[in-house]
Amino acid sequence: MNAEIIAIGSELLTPHRTDTNSLFLTERLNQLGVEVVFKVVCGDDQRLLAAAVRQALARADIIIIMGGLGPTEDDLTREAVAEALDLKLERDPEIITKIEARFAKRGWKMSANNAKQADVLTGATVLANPNGTAPGQWLSGMYDGREKMIMLLPGPPFELKAMFDDQCAARLRAKLPPAAIYTRTLKIAGMGESAVDARVAPIYKEYGDVQTTILAGAGEVQLHFRARAETIDEAEALVEDVAGKVEDELGDAVFSRNNESLEQIVGLFLQMRGATLAVAESCTGGLLSERLTSVSGSSRYFLGGAVVYSNELKAEFAGVPHHFIEKHGAVSKEVAAALAEGIRAKCGATLGLGVTGIAGPTGGSEAKPVGLVYHALASEAGTEVVEKQFPGDRKRVRHFASQQALDMVRRKLM
Amino acid sequence: MNAEIIAIGSELLTPHRTDTNSLFLTERLNQLGVEVVFKVVCGDDQRLLAAAVRQALARADIIIIMGGLGPTEDDLTREAVAEALDLKLERDPEIITKIEARFAKRGWKMSANNAKQADVLTGATVLANPNGTAPGQWLSGMYDGREKMIMLLPGPPFELKAMFDDQCAARLRAKLPPAAIYTRTLKIAGMGESAVDARVAPIYKEYGDVQTTILAGAGEVQLHFRARAETIDEAEALVEDVAGKVEDELGDAVFSRNNESLEQIVGLFLQMRGATLAVAESCTGGLLSERLTSVSGSSRYFLGGAVVYSNELKAEFAGVPHHFIEKHGAVSKEVAAALAEGIRAKCGATLGLGVTGIAGPTGGSEAKPVGLVYHALASEAGTEVVEKQFPGDRKRVRHFASQQALDMVRRKLM
Repeated sequence: MNAEIIAIGSELLTPHRTDTNSLFLTERLNQLGVEVVFKVVCGDDQRLLAAAVRQALARADIIIIMGGLGPTEDDLTREAVAEALDLKLERDPEIITKIEARFAKRGWKMSANNAKQADVLTGATVLANPNGTAPGQWLSGMYDGREKMIMLLPGPPFELKAMFDDQCAARLRAKLPPAAIYTRTLKIAGMGESAVDARVAPIYKEYGDVQTTILAGAGEVQLHFRARAETIDEAEALVEDVAGKVEDELGDAVFSRNNESLEQIVGLFLQMRGATLAVAESCTGGLLSERLTSVSGSSRYFLGGAVVYSNELKAEFAGVPHHFIEKHGAVSKEVAAALAEGIRAKCGATLGLGVTGIAGPTGGSEAKPVGLVYHALASEAGTEVVEKQFPGDRKRVRHFASQQALDMVRRKLM
Repeated sequence: MNAEIIAIGSELLTPHRTDTNSLFLTERLNQLGVEVVFKVVCGDDQRLLAAAVRQALARADIIIIMGGLGPTEDDLTREAVAEALDLKLERDPEIITKIEARFAKRGWKMSANNAKQADVLTGATVLANPNGTAPGQWLSGMYDGREKMIMLLPGPPFELKAMFDDQCAARLRAKLPPAAIYTRTLKIAGMGESAVDARVAPIYKEYGDVQTTILAGAGEVQLHFRARAETIDEAEALVEDVAGKVEDELGDAVFSRNNESLEQIVGLFLQMRGATLAVAESCTGGLLSERLTSVSGSSRYFLGGAVVYSNELKAEFAGVPHHFIEKHGAVSKEVAAALAEGIRAKCGATLGLGVTGIAGPTGGSEAKPVGLVYHALASEAGTEVVEKQFPGDRKRVRHFASQQALDMVRRKLM
């Protein structure tokens, strides 16, 4: 079976917003063995939306329509689906009672326009919405000789996700033939996209049953493997076969097999070794600390860090003397090493990281161009420094640099 | 006139990727007075794509189809449009020569599959692609009694953007009635979405000619105003009328009129006042520094910061003594104030910020629940502390807290 996802809302047709709910839904549908074949974004226009629903019925078995279930005049999803399927809408007094109770709990009175959220399509099952006022609806039946399933879900991600997971997934599973899609993601640090592809394409091209996709970001390449079979075990076996060979080929460069971020992996390794980390960052300006502390529980291994933009603070927080900076230049191998060693000593950490470089767009010179970054890792055993010349804008250079620094910690602890 | 955007590519129907090109195209079309009424994502399937093109012709005057112009078997856009419009494809020897030259420049020989990129729809104008091998195509003509324009553009953002700006925008402008859309964005800090709407809805509802949209993030509400008129000056006058009244109503809460971020505004204010800033952050873990330093040139006013997760580092970097933390608790009004004052003194900054709180998901208690954050701003005149209880997950709490802290600096310097 296949699916189409229709996102409703004029705000999704502006330059400011795009539909992201469909990524969540696609993942969940894939897990049930369902492929998404078409996605649509439609404004708050009943005629266009009704036509879109009819077109979707001709293309897909499962149609998920999200948004447009609220109380305002712009919320036309119920009316449009009724028009498309030639169904009636009937007001359900039980839903009204629930909405009134929801308002009463906050000491408010339900305004009259909210009542339209209680309009239910003939034959539809109401999907309760514990996180909002608008309930969803589930319809299934024959259309042009094939069984079709249609879901009307609320647009806010929090409401949509809970409603799909708690009420739609099991209903879908009961209707679907046994089929499962298994996916695995390998994340790779320290190699570019084309270098990874050159190494692994000869392997994955041998496996026609497994779909392989390469995605590249700053300092990270992801390989997504995906296979479909009757059972999850069969699909898993297909994926693991090729993913295992690819992993053997790439070795150390693979840092994650279960979708962990590099900062999560670094945290795991630090905890496993009973080690602690402190960082002194100049050009990454806090990004390195921010990434490390974005992991819950990071206070167990991350002692803290210093953002040392000025030379005064390089001295104050990481003990790198002024004359030393003047001698070597703030962006230098020597200062990176001194930052790493200084912050390690100040914080009493097992490992110290130091990063200094030129994030741009200004501040570059012929000798030290924008994108030049020195990364240093200090430990009991000594200090290693890696020099890199990164491409891209300020944001990209900073991300590359934080990725390189984290990967040095990972490799050190491996 | 209105437009539909069709993005082609099976990778856009996975959980990993979504179309973002359409945001760029929507902005450009809006500037030309064109509204986007429908967006579609279609996989590499000629039959589905041909049907989608026919459906788009029934809905929109301008159809932009992007992706699927490459040399592989999956690249079926040309074939699908030929099928939908009942046009022929003819191979253009001039394009082949160009592609061969492109390969030759790199010392490569063009492989045979590349030739299909030279297939041109009958009557189409070829759009040169200086940034890639696949040229685009422009078609215009009558369809069901209305003039339609169809563009086939390459999928890679860099190629698509240049081709649209350099070759499509002027062609479109020549075909369109004089119309312009003017937009303005007001950004608001320190108020929730419903509070903002309650204050300003009575104003913007009076202006039927201006479309007003509210978007809300953690600690920031955006109001987007949009009007269409024959000239950009008329459209601007319509928008400025309502935006000005809304701004008067919201006063101080509006921090940006030209789409600047809060960290950019804080940077501007600091520079204007010749002031400097230093930060000591616990629960935001580097996010505050990262945001401040994401602005190019921030070294002129941002001295640096300390990420002080452990009590030892609160003492070492911000001079907050151990016994003081033990007395008041690390998450307290007093420690926030001491962090702000300590980091200000250590760094010799005009202003010092201190943030301490519980980002979650663990670490909360009944007395100090997840989401409780203290923000302190120290200056020559003294220290102010703001206590907030933020909703949401770790990422959201941290973003809320950084927003609150930055907004305190803005208000102080206003």
